[in-house]
Amino acid sequence: MIIVMSHQATPPQVEAVVERIREIGLRPEVSLGEDRAVIGVIGGNAYAYREAFSHLSGIQEIVQVTKPFKLASREFRPDDTVVDVAGVRVGGDEVVVMAGPCSVENQDMLLETARHVASQGARLLRGGAFKPRTSPYSFQGLGESGLRLLAEAREATGLRVVSEVVAPGDVELVASYVDLLQVGTRNMQNYALLQEVGRSQRPVLLKRGMSSTVEEWLLAAEYVLSQGNRGVILCERGIRTFEQSTRFTLDLNSVPLVRELSHLPVIVDPSQGTGRWSLVRPMSLAAVAAGAHGLILEVHPRPDQALSDGAQSLDFENFDQLMADLRRLASSLAKQLT
Amino acid sequence: MIIVMSHQATPPQVEAVVERIREIGLRPEVSLGEDRAVIGVIGGNAYAYREAFSHLSGIQEIVQVTKPFKLASREFRPDDTVVDVAGVRVGGDEVVVMAGPCSVENQDMLLETARHVASQGARLLRGGAFKPRTSPYSFQGLGESGLRLLAEAREATGLRVVSEVVAPGDVELVASYVDLLQVGTRNMQNYALLQEVGRSQRPVLLKRGMSSTVEEWLLAAEYVLSQGNRGVILCERGIRTFEQSTRFTLDLNSVPLVRELSHLPVIVDPSQGTGRWSLVRPMSLAAVAAGAHGLILEVHPRPDQALSDGAQSLDFENFDQLMADLRRLASSLAKQLT
Amino acid sequence: MIIVMSHQATPPQVEAVVERIREIGLRPEVSLGEDRAVIGVIGGNAYAYREAFSHLSGIQEIVQVTKPFKLASREFRPDDTVVDVAGVRVGGDEVVVMAGPCSVENQDMLLETARHVASQGARLLRGGAFKPRTSPYSFQGLGESGLRLLAEAREATGLRVVSEVVAPGDVELVASYVDLLQVGTRNMQNYALLQEVGRSQRPVLLKRGMSSTVEEWLLAAEYVLSQGNRGVILCERGIRTFEQSTRFTLDLNSVPLVRELSHLPVIVDPSQGTGRWSLVRPMSLAAVAAGAHGLILEVHPRPDQALSDGAQSLDFENFDQLMADLRRLASSLAKQLT
Amino acid sequence: MIIVMSHQATPPQVEAVVERIREIGLRPEVSLGEDRAVIGVIGGNAYAYREAFSHLSGIQEIVQVTKPFKLASREFRPDDTVVDVAGVRVGGDEVVVMAGPCSVENQDMLLETARHVASQGARLLRGGAFKPRTSPYSFQGLGESGLRLLAEAREATGLRVVSEVVAPGDVELVASYVDLLQVGTRNMQNYALLQEVGRSQRPVLLKRGMSSTVEEWLLAAEYVLSQGNRGVILCERGIRTFEQSTRFTLDLNSVPLVRELSHLPVIVDPSQGTGRWSLVRPMSLAAVAAGAHGLILEVHPRPDQALSDGAQSLDFENFDQLMADLRRLASSLAKQLT
Repeated sequence: MIIVMSHQATPPQVEAVVERIREIGLRPEVSLGEDRAVIGVIGGNAYAYREAFSHLSGIQEIVQVTKPFKLASREFRPDDTVVDVAGVRVGGDEVVVMAGPCSVENQDMLLETARHVASQGARLLRGGAFKPRTSPYSFQGLGESGLRLLAEAREATGLRVVSEVVAPGDVELVASYVDLLQVGTRNMQNYALLQEVGRSQRPVLLKRGMSSTVEEWLLAAEYVLSQGNRGVILCERGIRTFEQSTRFTLDLNSVPLVRELSHLPVIVDPSQGTGRWSLVRPMSLAAVAAGAHGLILEVHPRPDQALSDGAQSLDFENFDQLMADLRRLASSLAKQLT
Repeated sequence: MIIVMSHQATPPQVEAVVERIREIGLRPEVSLGEDRAVIGVIGGNAYAYREAFSHLSGIQEIVQVTKPFKLASREFRPDDTVVDVAGVRVGGDEVVVMAGPCSVENQDMLLETARHVASQGARLLRGGAFKPRTSPYSFQGLGESGLRLLAEAREATGLRVVSEVVAPGDVELVASYVDLLQVGTRNMQNYALLQEVGRSQRPVLLKRGMSSTVEEWLLAAEYVLSQGNRGVILCERGIRTFEQSTRFTLDLNSVPLVRELSHLPVIVDPSQGTGRWSLVRPMSLAAVAAGAHGLILEVHPRPDQALSDGAQSLDFENFDQLMADLRRLASSLAKQLT
Repeated sequence: MIIVMSHQATPPQVEAVVERIREIGLRPEVSLGEDRAVIGVIGGNAYAYREAFSHLSGIQEIVQVTKPFKLASREFRPDDTVVDVAGVRVGGDEVVVMAGPCSVENQDMLLETARHVASQGARLLRGGAFKPRTSPYSFQGLGESGLRLLAEAREATGLRVVSEVVAPGDVELVASYVDLLQVGTRNMQNYALLQEVGRSQRPVLLKRGMSSTVEEWLLAAEYVLSQGNRGVILCERGIRTFEQSTRFTLDLNSVPLVRELSHLPVIVDPSQGTGRWSLVRPMSLAAVAAGAHGLILEVHPRPDQALSDGAQSLDFENFDQLMADLRRLASSLAKQLT
Repeated sequence: MIIVMSHQATPPQVEAVVERIREIGLRPEVSLGEDRAVIGVIGGNAYAYREAFSHLSGIQEIVQVTKPFKLASREFRPDDTVVDVAGVRVGGDEVVVMAGPCSVENQDMLLETARHVASQGARLLRGGAFKPRTSPYSFQGLGESGLRLLAEAREATGLRVVSEVVAPGDVELVASYVDLLQVGTRNMQNYALLQEVGRSQRPVLLKRGMSSTVEEWLLAAEYVLSQGNRGVILCERGIRTFEQSTRFTLDLNSVPLVRELSHLPVIVDPSQGTGRWSLVRPMSLAAVAAGAHGLILEVHPRPDQALSDGAQSLDFENFDQLMADLRRLASSLAKQLT
C-alpha cells in the first residue's frame, strides 16, 4: 500500500500518517519528493487497514499495490490448477461440456436429456433442483426429489452431476447427491454459503456475480479456498450492463483475464449469459476460442415446454450441431473434446 | 400478458400459440389486425408462464402488462404503509434518522456514538455485528457479542436498534436482539434469507441490490411480504455503474419511483451509496427533498480510526451540522424531525 | 505520476524505466523500498506520456497523481466561478431556472410557454432548434427559423435564450441568436465542436455525456476553457446504467462532487435525466438540495401534443407547483429564486 | 405500435386515444378485452409519434412492434451485404484484417508497420491522423500530413487505408486520401457527421458508441444509409460497464446479434475494446469464432514508444503469432484468410 500525500501537505500531516502506520503495527517508508511526499506501508495485510487513514488530513490518494486475493492468485501458484470432478479433469486441455435442462422437471425428461447429451460427448449433467427465482410466484424447483432424479441419471449414463445449492444449511444434503456444487450468480457474495461450501469435500462451480468485478469474483473464490477446499472452478455467466437486447452481457474478456490473474480453471455459461438460444452456438465457440476450459449449456428436449428459461435452451438438434462445431474448433486450437 | 405475432406468422402458428395458452389453463383473446395478430392472455399469473411460449414460431414479442409484484404494489394498497419499529413510525411525515458506526467495535465507542446521535434527534442506532465483507481477510464483525452491545446501548439511550443478518440460521438470534432486521445489498436475492426474515415477527429493512432494478427490489420485498411479514422498509443504497468517482451511484430517482409503484416506505443510505463522507450531507438533503422517509447514516466518533468504512463516516461535528440542515429542510417540506 | 515496480523487478528493469523517463524529458525520483521500487515522475504533463511506459517490463502499476484537468480545477481557481449570461448570473446564490419546450414547434406555442414560465420566475427560455435525434426519421427541429422564434420570444419576455448547437459550422449562426450555447450529451466528446464553442464569445452549457465519468466531463470543459472561453456551465442530465425504469439515471452525486473538484457552476436537467414527468418535481427539489445552481426543465402547454419528449414535459400547472415548492426549499437553504 | 390501456381506463379515455391516433393520420384498431383495451396503431412511422400519446390518461404502456431501423434491417435485405473497399470485400467468407498503429507518427514507422502487416496477410492499413482525445493536452494527430503518409504507405504496399474523420467539414479531405472512412465511438451519435459521410462515395466503418445499444448503433447506420451511402461496415469496440479491469467491455454478443438483425458486415476491435495487449490474441480468436467478418488491430513496431495507446498495441512478434492462430481457426470454420 502506498499513501500519496497532497502537494500542500504539511510536515506535521506527514508525521501524523507515519505515526498512524506505526500504531497499527505496520512499517512506514517515507520518500520526500520535490513535489510531495509518498509513503510506502509495509508488512501484514496493509490493505485491510487502508480505512484507518481515510480521515487523516493531507492525504491525496491511497494506492493498493498487491492484489487482495492470495490463494487464488497466479503468483501463489504459477501452474494451472486442474480440478478433478469425480474423475473428469477440468482445467487441462479437454474442453469439458456440462449440459442439461435449466430445472429438473421429471424423470423421463431428465433421462432423455442425459442420454442424449452423453451420446454427444457431454461429461456432466446440469439441472436445477433448488432454483433461486426472482419472483416468489415462479417455479422454485423440485428440491431433494430433483437431486434424487439427478443421481439416478448419473447411474444410467455415467455423466457426473452439477447442481446449485442456495442455503448454507443445504450444503451437506446437496453434496451427498452431486459431484460439483454450484454457487449461483445471486449468491456469489453470500459469504455464509461460500464458507460452508469451502468446508465441503466437493469441488465448487463458482458463478460470477452479475455485477461483480473480476477482483470480487476472485475474492469470492478466496473465501472458498481459505476454508481448505481447493477445487474451485470459475464460471463466467454474463454481467449487467445498459444493453438489454441480450439478457446479460456475457463478458468473455474475463476468460483470458482470469487466466492471467489466477491459476483456477474457468468455464462459460452462454445460455444464462445471453438469454437467447440463437446466440448460444456462436458464443460457445467464441468462449472456447478465448480460452475457456469448458461450457455449461442449457439443453431441453422440447424447449417450448420448459418450465423455466425455455428461450435460452438448445433443442437436441442445435446441441448436436454445436458439439460438431466445437469439435472442429477444439482441434484447430490443439484441445480435445470427448 | 400480450403476445405479439410476427407479421409473417401463419394461421397455424397463431393457432399453435392459442392451443398452448389453453393447455396451460389460461384464456386466449385473439385480435387479428391487418398487419399482424395480437393475442391477449388472461387469467392466473400469466407472467410466470411466458417462457412456455418462447420456442413457438411466429412470435415477435411477449409483453408483460401487469406488474409481477402484487402485495408490494400501490394497486394492492393505495395508501402509504407506515411500519412500526418498536414505536417509531417509518413511512409517515417524520423523517426518521438511523445513525451509528458501520461496525460495532467496542462498548465505549458504541455508547458514546449512541448517546451523541440520540441527543441530536436520531431514532435508531445502526451498527454491524455480522458483516458481509468482500475479502475473507477483512474484519468480519463481533457477532453475538456485538448484538449484546447494541441491546445495551438501546437500554442506555432509548434508541431502537437495526443490524444486519446474513444467514437464514441467524435470523432468530439477531431478531432476539434488534428491533429492525437489515437485509444487505449482497443478500437482496438470497431467497432463503428473504423467506426466513419473512417468517420473523420483526420488521425488515431491505436494501436494494447494487445491481438490482427497481422491479427486482420490489419482487424481493414480495418474498418477505408473501411469508406474512408486512413490515418491510425499502432502502436505496446506490447501484453499480461505470462511474467510479463515487463508490456507488446513489440512485435517488428510485425514491419517487418506488413511491409511485409501491405503498412501502423508503429510506436512503448516502454513506454506503457514495462512499465519501463529504457527499453525505448534500445527498442526505437531496434524499429527503426527493421524498425519502428517512436516512441511515454512518457516524463514528473518530472516523480515522474506524475498523471499516471510515472514509464514508461522519464525525460528530458533521453529523450535528447535517441534523440542523435537515431540520430546516424538513420544515420547508412540511415534514418533521424529532 | 508514480510508477510502481513489481516486487520481482530486476535492477536493469528499474534502470530502463529511469532511462525512459529521462528520454522523454521528465525527471525520475527513485525510492528503493525493501519490497519494491517506486519511481516518481516529475515535470511537464507526465500523464500524457504514461503510455510510453506501458510496454517496459517490471512495471506493476502507473498511478496518476495530479488531476488531468487544470483550468477547470478547484486548485486552479479556489473561488466559485459565476457565469454571466447576458446579465443573469449562474453560479451564485440564485437558483436559476431555465424552462421551455423540448423543441421549438411554432410561434404561438413558444410565446405562450415563454410568457408563462417568465411569469413564474424562470430566467432563461430553452427550446431546441437543431435537434440531435436517434432516428433519422424523427422530427429534426426547425433550424434557423426556430432560432428566430426564440429571439422573438426573448424580445417579448426579457427571458434569455439557450439552445443547442450540433455542428462546428453552425456555432456562429446559433451564437448570433442565443445567449447561452448548449452542447448536448451526444456531443460532449465531439472535440471539433468543443473547440469551436471555445472560440465563441457566448457562454456554454455543457451537458454531461450519458456515459461520461465526472473526470471526462471536466476534461470536455477543459477543451472549451483552453480555447479562451471561460463561461462554462456544467449540466448533469443522467447517465446510462442497467436500470431502465427511468430513461437515464440522473446522477445527483455528481453535483456535490463537481463542486469539490471544480469552480464551475453546475445545473441539473431532471426532464431528460428521468424521462418521466412525474419524477421531475421531486428530482428538481433534490437537485437544489444537493447544491445545484439551477435547473433546466421541459415545459409545454399541452405535453400530450408535443412533437418530441412529451412524456418528460411538465404542463403549466405542474410547473407552477414546482416553482412554489422550489421557492420554499431555496429559502430554507438560504438561496434565492426570482 | 400497440397502446395498452390500464384496466381502470374509462371508455372516454379509450376514445380520446383513438381520436388522437386519427388526428395524427394513423389508423386505430381497438381490441376490447375482458380485462382491458388494447389499441393497435397502423400506418406511417407510428413510432415517431409515440410521444404524442404520453400525456393522455388511462394508458399503461406503449409497445413498439416494428424495428425503428429499416434500410439496415435484415427484413429489408435478407442477404448479407458485402462492402467493397477498393477491391477488398468485407462481409463474405474472408476474415479481413485491418492493422496498423493507433496514430500515424512518422513515415519510417508507418512504412515499417505497413510492410510488416501486409507481409502477414493484413488487407487494410489503419492509422489515426485526426485523433479524438479525451484531454486537450494529449497528442491530437498529424492531420493532413498524416493522411499523406497513409496514402504513400498504400502506394508502397498495396494495402487499402482506413482512417478516422472527426468533423463534417473534414469529410471531403479525408475521403480524398482513404479507402474507408472511420466514424469513431465518440461520434457515433454526431448526426451532422453521419449525414456528411452518408453523402460521400467512400464506404464507412461505423464504430459502436461506447454506451450505445445495438438498436441505436443500427439507427446510426440508418443515418448513413438513408443519405444514399450503402457501404456501411459496423465495428464492435467495447462498451462501458462497471468492470474496470479491462478498459472497456468488448461485447462479442453484439456480433451474432447484429448479424441476426441486420445484413451489414460487422468487424471487431479488440485493441480498443480491451485496452490490454495480452487480451488481444484470445479476443481476436473469439471474435472470429463468434462470426465477425474481420478485425481491426493496433500494431506498432515498438509499442513502448507509441505516442498513444501503447498498452493495447501488439508488437510484430505477437501480431505474427495471432495471424498464424487466426489462419488455423478460420480454416476450421470454413473461412479464409489471405
